[in-house]
Amino acid sequence: MTATLSGTSHPVSPTGLPSVERHAVLPAGFRAGGLAAGIKASGRPDLALIDTTTGPAAVAAVFTPNAFVAAPIRRSSANLASTSGDPRGGFGWARAVVSTSGCANAATGAAGDEDQEHVERLVASALGIDRTQVLHLSTGIIGTRLPLDRVAAGLEALVPGLTSDDAGLDAAAGALRTTDSVAKVVSTTVELPGPDGAGDGSTVAITVSGIAKGVGMIHPNMATMLSVILTDAAVEPAVLWGLLRPAAARTWNQLSVDGDTSTNDTVFVLASGATPSAPVTAGSPAAAALGRAIEAVARDLARQQAADGEGATILITAAVRGARDDADARAVARAVVSSSLVKAAAHGKDPNWGRIAGAAGNATVAGRAVLEAAGIGSDSAAARAGQPATLDPDRLRISIAGHLVFDGARGGPLDFDRAAARAAMDAPELVIELDLGLGDGTGEAFGCDLTEAYVIENSEYTT
Amino acid sequence: MTATLSGTSHPVSPTGLPSVERHAVLPAGFRAGGLAAGIKASGRPDLALIDTTTGPAAVAAVFTPNAFVAAPIRRSSANLASTSGDPRGGFGWARAVVSTSGCANAATGAAGDEDQEHVERLVASALGIDRTQVLHLSTGIIGTRLPLDRVAAGLEALVPGLTSDDAGLDAAAGALRTTDSVAKVVSTTVELPGPDGAGDGSTVAITVSGIAKGVGMIHPNMATMLSVILTDAAVEPAVLWGLLRPAAARTWNQLSVDGDTSTNDTVFVLASGATPSAPVTAGSPAAAALGRAIEAVARDLARQQAADGEGATILITAAVRGARDDADARAVARAVVSSSLVKAAAHGKDPNWGRIAGAAGNATVAGRAVLEAAGIGSDSAAARAGQPATLDPDRLRISIAGHLVFDGARGGPLDFDRAAARAAMDAPELVIELDLGLGDGTGEAFGCDLTEAYVIENSEYTT
Repeated sequence: MTATLSGTSHPVSPTGLPSVERHAVLPAGFRAGGLAAGIKASGRPDLALIDTTTGPAAVAAVFTPNAFVAAPIRRSSANLASTSGDPRGGFGWARAVVSTSGCANAATGAAGDEDQEHVERLVASALGIDRTQVLHLSTGIIGTRLPLDRVAAGLEALVPGLTSDDAGLDAAAGALRTTDSVAKVVSTTVELPGPDGAGDGSTVAITVSGIAKGVGMIHPNMATMLSVILTDAAVEPAVLWGLLRPAAARTWNQLSVDGDTSTNDTVFVLASGATPSAPVTAGSPAAAALGRAIEAVARDLARQQAADGEGATILITAAVRGARDDADARAVARAVVSSSLVKAAAHGKDPNWGRIAGAAGNATVAGRAVLEAAGIGSDSAAARAGQPATLDPDRLRISIAGHLVFDGARGGPLDFDRAAARAAMDAPELVIELDLGLGDGTGEAFGCDLTEAYVIENSEYTT
Repeated sequence: MTATLSGTSHPVSPTGLPSVERHAVLPAGFRAGGLAAGIKASGRPDLALIDTTTGPAAVAAVFTPNAFVAAPIRRSSANLASTSGDPRGGFGWARAVVSTSGCANAATGAAGDEDQEHVERLVASALGIDRTQVLHLSTGIIGTRLPLDRVAAGLEALVPGLTSDDAGLDAAAGALRTTDSVAKVVSTTVELPGPDGAGDGSTVAITVSGIAKGVGMIHPNMATMLSVILTDAAVEPAVLWGLLRPAAARTWNQLSVDGDTSTNDTVFVLASGATPSAPVTAGSPAAAALGRAIEAVARDLARQQAADGEGATILITAAVRGARDDADARAVARAVVSSSLVKAAAHGKDPNWGRIAGAAGNATVAGRAVLEAAGIGSDSAAARAGQPATLDPDRLRISIAGHLVFDGARGGPLDFDRAAARAAMDAPELVIELDLGLGDGTGEAFGCDLTEAYVIENSEYTT
């Protein structure tokens, strides 16, 4: 536990989210698997497949706002649109998710679209489902074509081995990886009112599990972030979408900066409906509980992704409170973890509050488009897109790894035990807390340190 | 000369700016000097002073948008406001600029303000001028107090040695430096219509010279950028301000990202009026010519600053054309030079067009506040603050160091001579060109490569 500004406990579950476990639990209604199909030259697992055992699952999706969306995203959103009628392709129904790793199928033009359609036909045929019920993920090298023969052979080997046990989800998580040093899995459970809806207090236990890959760093650019969240809850696609978007805005959007994401970034949530509950309608307590579970899973995956940034040695969490509103708090948190100078100082175990204050002073409320995409843009936040967050140096307090180092009301920089602060920074997670002293807005963001290894890795990587 | 997308000449003077020379030329009406006052522990020059010999100079200023402005900025803008009545403190009159390097006098609270007022009194007394006619610059460590006794002794030694020759400007430039590997000076001349205004075609030659320090990198954060531009032109402060702001927006704002600047960033333009011309009124051809000269000086200083980024080995120039408008072009150019992955690829001489396309796809039009501060926000650009720039992958073309590597209209990635492109990237400047194929908007941005040395330097630096 790290002390906070107020001396209370670690701020790391600020929103009352349920606790999570970092192991794979495959919810009811799904099968999963993964193997090495030879897409990657390394011979590591690179083909993942998830399908449903109980008919179509409700799906909600969040895609990259990058102008250069890759072929798999075009296929996925077209399929979702066709099953739901939602013209944005943000939600719908599906029975399978296929993922190829090692080739992003991005910037491949019309030929890339044809390749992805070919994969779609292969999956649909192998599983005996309609083409429109296939969703796509891909990550890897840009501008190269998918090796369709290897994908075909891989699918032929993979489909018979799909399993409804947790090992299948582990295998799928492993096959999502590119430069990830570890597979990222997480699971939680939530109690929803039972299906009779009689108010007798009976509940059903719903599982929400997630797998993810990436990201390379806090500005992921081409370091694709992919995630699939699975639940056995029964919920309509549009309601699920309404839960996913704010959850993503508070978690993954706080890992990436202002939509600065890759051509392939994708999050899918699939709800199999295998464990019915009372109707999870928009605005209901059941929906709120399911939303918190989704957010808890998303948040932990985002933290795992930050901690596993390319070349990173530590996770940096910026926790902001006392902001004028949540949009300001998120902007400040994001600015802090995004600062190259803060990231380098974290690497050097330097309690450099000046860089933190400077980064906070540069915080800008995220673009309107990003907020709207996330479905969390209040009118006031939208109107302030691109505007600086409100800060008052005379009210700001900054704590680094539990050491209060700056208090505007007491003249600014404080005398603090520098050696003790440096020692406290020598840990797998660095928590930087800022209290803006202006309101009750809160937010957090996740990043990692900037290291020589990052530079070396990324100056040698080839397109 | 580097080939462009169209095979014509290097795009590096896209706006018809006058040519510049990288040596110090002190315009008429000024004296300058610099010396080591002992503010820096290294004993290097750290105190600069410029004053006028012909009465008050017209002044225009651009300050950091950071919420945590340092004491010298508060003094400068208050003084400008008091001499002009401009409540924003953006322009006015002054007779001296004092710069301290090694101590930023930032985050020092009320005591820091008192220190800066003490410096102001020392300068005013030594030069026999009114306190409100002193402007302030500072850069260096955050949160420490100015050593007033050393500043006082330094001024006592410096004032008698102020000189009207070019060496004085060189000395002042040297004393601005912190981690800069070289002093940054530049000069140009411009012909303005003669003072008689009789239309007989007679002209007067006006000098515009600039000195600068910094920045540490393309996201300067706490790596302060300071610049002073001097001219002997006669122009009213408000007109001068109207010239400086768009010039800064096209140059320094394209070096820094979306207002992501330090607590101390400052640009001053001082016009001594020592060489009278026909009136330089707002909107006149003379004002336009003077504005181009100021922009040429600003642009070259920005390029010198990018090339001298901490740990940098090359200057990266992104030149964008064919954008829907200039705001989009600038956003895309800024996104490209700001991408850590592009910067690392540049360091590795990797013609990685995928990262360039990905960065461009994430470009967001700069915040409304930034545009308004720069005085260049068209209504449409302001309305789009925080919105993605308009891009069409099927129309985009990308050239790296003269090699066309991507053409959306031809399916995207092109076969190109990778070895030749790598060889062309092995140069002091890397030019990345993007033609968006959508309109006639143009813009450029300046950055540098990301190196192991940057990380090492910034993980070891202490607040």
